[in-house]
Amino acid sequence: MEPPYTIRPIGYVESSLVEQGTAPKQGFEGAPDAWLVFDPDLAEGIRDLRVGADIFVVTWLHQARRDVLAVHPRDDPRNPLTGVFSTRSQDRPNPIGLHRVQVVAIDELRLLVHNLEALNGTPIVDVKPVLADGR
Amino acid sequence: MEPPYTIRPIGYVESSLVEQGTAPKQGFEGAPDAWLVFDPDLAEGIRDLRVGADIFVVTWLHQARRDVLAVHPRDDPRNPLTGVFSTRSQDRPNPIGLHRVQVVAIDELRLLVHNLEALNGTPIVDVKPVLADGR
Repeated sequence: MEPPYTIRPIGYVESSLVEQGTAPKQGFEGAPDAWLVFDPDLAEGIRDLRVGADIFVVTWLHQARRDVLAVHPRDDPRNPLTGVFSTRSQDRPNPIGLHRVQVVAIDELRLLVHNLEALNGTPIVDVKPVLADGR
Repeated sequence: MEPPYTIRPIGYVESSLVEQGTAPKQGFEGAPDAWLVFDPDLAEGIRDLRVGADIFVVTWLHQARRDVLAVHPRDDPRNPLTGVFSTRSQDRPNPIGLHRVQVVAIDELRLLVHNLEALNGTPIVDVKPVLADGR
């Protein structure tokens, strides 16, 4: 494979969060439960996910800006301009989101997770188990 | 942005690991220190990274297979076939690698990190700070 590389979503987030301005910055800051809805063609890939599993959800932050290299963290102008790779800003050259969540229910191709700060309709690009030491 | 999405590497891994068969599966399993070498155009984005920082390095596992939905974990046929989203296998629909490492030295556009299991030449697609609670 030679760059650029192509990402195809494996599913989408279904959430009550619809507006970026009011969304929490991080999942532990009052984000709601949300459904991860997977492409039926990928059912084999999710078949071993279980209620209680700690997972990393990797998303594509489709409303982000990709031409930004420094931001005021947390969109607060009082915070000094900071290189994006030292922040969790959605605005970055490859707008990948990383969310650590727990699976709390499973309904066929849908996983319910706690405290996900991603907006409704956010594409999901990968899911990985959290390893025993949190990595 | 509409799918498919396009990823452009922000840099590359420089490592003594050159062969997939002998590479450790995870960073804590004896992986070497490695350099993250960034695109000069993105210098502003890395300017606030410091020695001692814990970061997630997001890579594109360019030698992976994308048509695999179940694997024998750790390439061991004694392990039962498992849906890829319950494993850290490099083979998965969007072959994104996630590596939690510590920055141990900085030389302009190059960051030295401890225990990175990515092969030499692996494209880097994002870097994020690890938050205080390990997320």
